[in-house]
Amino acid sequence: MSSLRIANGTVLTMTPDCAPIPGGVVCMDGGLISYAGPAEGAPPHSGEEIIDAGGCVVLPGLVNAHTHLAMTLFRGYADDMALQTWLEDWIWPAEMRLTAEDVYWGALLGTCEMLRAGVTCFNDMYHMPDQAVRAAIDGGIRACPSGVLLGFLPNAQDLLEEAIAFVGQLKDEGHPRVHPMLAPHAVYTCPDAMLEKVGEAATQLEVPIHIHLAETASEVRDSYDEHGESPIEHLNTLGLLDIPMLAAHCVHLSEADIALLAEKQVGIAHCPTSNMKLASGFAPVVALLEAGAIVGLGTDGCASNNNLDVLEEVHLAALLEKGDSGDPTVLPAPTALAMATRLAAQALHLGDMIGTLEAGKRADVIVVDMSRPHLQPPRDPFSHLVYAARAADVRTTIVEGEVIMDEDEILTVDEAEVIARATECADLLLG
Amino acid sequence: MSSLRIANGTVLTMTPDCAPIPGGVVCMDGGLISYAGPAEGAPPHSGEEIIDAGGCVVLPGLVNAHTHLAMTLFRGYADDMALQTWLEDWIWPAEMRLTAEDVYWGALLGTCEMLRAGVTCFNDMYHMPDQAVRAAIDGGIRACPSGVLLGFLPNAQDLLEEAIAFVGQLKDEGHPRVHPMLAPHAVYTCPDAMLEKVGEAATQLEVPIHIHLAETASEVRDSYDEHGESPIEHLNTLGLLDIPMLAAHCVHLSEADIALLAEKQVGIAHCPTSNMKLASGFAPVVALLEAGAIVGLGTDGCASNNNLDVLEEVHLAALLEKGDSGDPTVLPAPTALAMATRLAAQALHLGDMIGTLEAGKRADVIVVDMSRPHLQPPRDPFSHLVYAARAADVRTTIVEGEVIMDEDEILTVDEAEVIARATECADLLLG
Repeated sequence: MSSLRIANGTVLTMTPDCAPIPGGVVCMDGGLISYAGPAEGAPPHSGEEIIDAGGCVVLPGLVNAHTHLAMTLFRGYADDMALQTWLEDWIWPAEMRLTAEDVYWGALLGTCEMLRAGVTCFNDMYHMPDQAVRAAIDGGIRACPSGVLLGFLPNAQDLLEEAIAFVGQLKDEGHPRVHPMLAPHAVYTCPDAMLEKVGEAATQLEVPIHIHLAETASEVRDSYDEHGESPIEHLNTLGLLDIPMLAAHCVHLSEADIALLAEKQVGIAHCPTSNMKLASGFAPVVALLEAGAIVGLGTDGCASNNNLDVLEEVHLAALLEKGDSGDPTVLPAPTALAMATRLAAQALHLGDMIGTLEAGKRADVIVVDMSRPHLQPPRDPFSHLVYAARAADVRTTIVEGEVIMDEDEILTVDEAEVIARATECADLLLG
Repeated sequence: MSSLRIANGTVLTMTPDCAPIPGGVVCMDGGLISYAGPAEGAPPHSGEEIIDAGGCVVLPGLVNAHTHLAMTLFRGYADDMALQTWLEDWIWPAEMRLTAEDVYWGALLGTCEMLRAGVTCFNDMYHMPDQAVRAAIDGGIRACPSGVLLGFLPNAQDLLEEAIAFVGQLKDEGHPRVHPMLAPHAVYTCPDAMLEKVGEAATQLEVPIHIHLAETASEVRDSYDEHGESPIEHLNTLGLLDIPMLAAHCVHLSEADIALLAEKQVGIAHCPTSNMKLASGFAPVVALLEAGAIVGLGTDGCASNNNLDVLEEVHLAALLEKGDSGDPTVLPAPTALAMATRLAAQALHLGDMIGTLEAGKRADVIVVDMSRPHLQPPRDPFSHLVYAARAADVRTTIVEGEVIMDEDEILTVDEAEVIARATECADLLLG
């Protein structure tokens, strides 16, 4: 595994209250960061490859805290529809016909898209998760894979056992870029007994739970009707909030829910684009952050976004909180960017491993070119990244110390083949 | 002036209810479109230059219906602040020190940014508008320039006379890419007598009026207090709604306001990013469109956005309306894209000249590369452009039949010099 040094860029370590370090240095060795800080404190150069980041900002790779990766195949297939029509008439029937090859090529297409956009880690919930793992390993990205456990399926029990075996196998294999989870789809789609079993297995296997939570008003209303409590409270009643958890969406929350999510340090994946596109509502992000909850950002799947552009979610999250609250001072740029780096890593329970540039952490690093007119004149890099930059400004993406994307090129897989194969799969699947 | 033919791309004419034309052809001659449609109906090739748009979408250049262009100098200078602090402590004091060179280089920087993002026309309201004209002519973009008329300035009367003379001179010169307006800043910053004078001059000179209207709740409240009517009703009382008008923002509207804006065919510039960043509110775009009003999109200035990315406004407008209304079927992709093309052109009262690809219209055309992973697999181009594309996907920008930006390069001005000079100006101005 190679040694690398990034020099001359403005370094944002994304540690709490970090100040930009002009002309900073990031050194990587054996897949880990060995130094990140001012040039004057850096270890002497000892022959390792140097990446010149002049005119660029260097920061931790972006983290996509919630997606359904292979849904790239459904991009643009069903837009501008009511949620139930979308799911029942379009998405679910097509998903019934998915093959393993569909999932692999769809996931690999999404991997190429994310690497180009500076996303170095994704949290996936999708069918045939072994294919997402295969795509992540081949593509060179970090993954938190999990299948989808749906209580109403006739073979739900088999799928749960398969998921447990899958996680066990991945834990045994111990690939440094693969961090599995168990994923019951949601409280309203999984009976209590199943949720409790998932909880037991997660505890035993020492993996987090990935779940959709309080996404729509009707989900929350139904939970009160059925259980006499909110979905968050119901998970707490079942003891599941004492297990590390990543909860996607968390849009419709009471004050008690917010307090509980903060107290239990549940990782939250805020998905502003998806919530707006499906008209699910506006999540109370500022209230969550003020309560001490951990809020990262996710794109959700490509059928409800329709891309995997985490920087766009950063931009939108910062704008939406201001618009929704009526207060232009909330969710300032550094906090919004932390939601795609440090906080997202914490939300995935990988905070000791990724999310900041610090010696000892995994070397997931991106270099963003700030030279184009829309990022000029040079000024506060937090502001430019959050309010003016685009994913296409990412010049270099490094995962686990290896350069995976550089200057508009994916270095791990043949991108033209990935696009051709994914298109073939989508054509066969959707016509 | 050269002849050009774009072939092999999917053509979106952006005429009402247009269907994508795969393998379509757009011919240009003498600055005008001579043909836009299926390959089989195209005139025979007669030696003109051919642009191969294989794998691309060809559509009208995007229109930025409201900006303050030279505020590129203020990008990232003052974010995450309350409106009055932002204006009174940061923006206005700096603007007092602006020189003509500042405005020229700031406007030219913004011109480069817009041309790269496929924006071929902008509607500007800023100090020293002769400098924006100079930048637009040098840069090769289409411009609707106007100064800013503020009633409370001691030299307001002189500025009004200057503005009238400026418009008269531009009308005499008749540059094919320059379409001046008169711009009283807002109802609350201009006394009635001044607004009436502007109205008379606009009628006489046959130019539209460009004004901020109903941007904030307090502006509307103050209008009821002072005039006993809304700002829209007050302009109507003064007779100004019978003159062609572009009103920026239109966020806080009564049902009567909406009916009046539709009846008088006032052009509206919806600026979703700015409205969210400054927490001004959510404009009732769907209600306006349903009432028959003309709604285009604008970026506003770079101090409240912080870029000039019209495609981002398209994306945000489509998402925001769904989120705000709770209905995921509203503002579908083709309508959102029309708001940056046909409807924006109509809003600027240039609908007979630009905004669609039709024989006889000015040849403002862009070519968007759909080959990258985030726009794959190929599917409905409206959906991909609105929900998944980025400004960086624009490959070629043509204004008045001339290729101005191609393959990441501005062909009219030395972009490196523009960035260096604008940075110098910003450093001197803001420290």
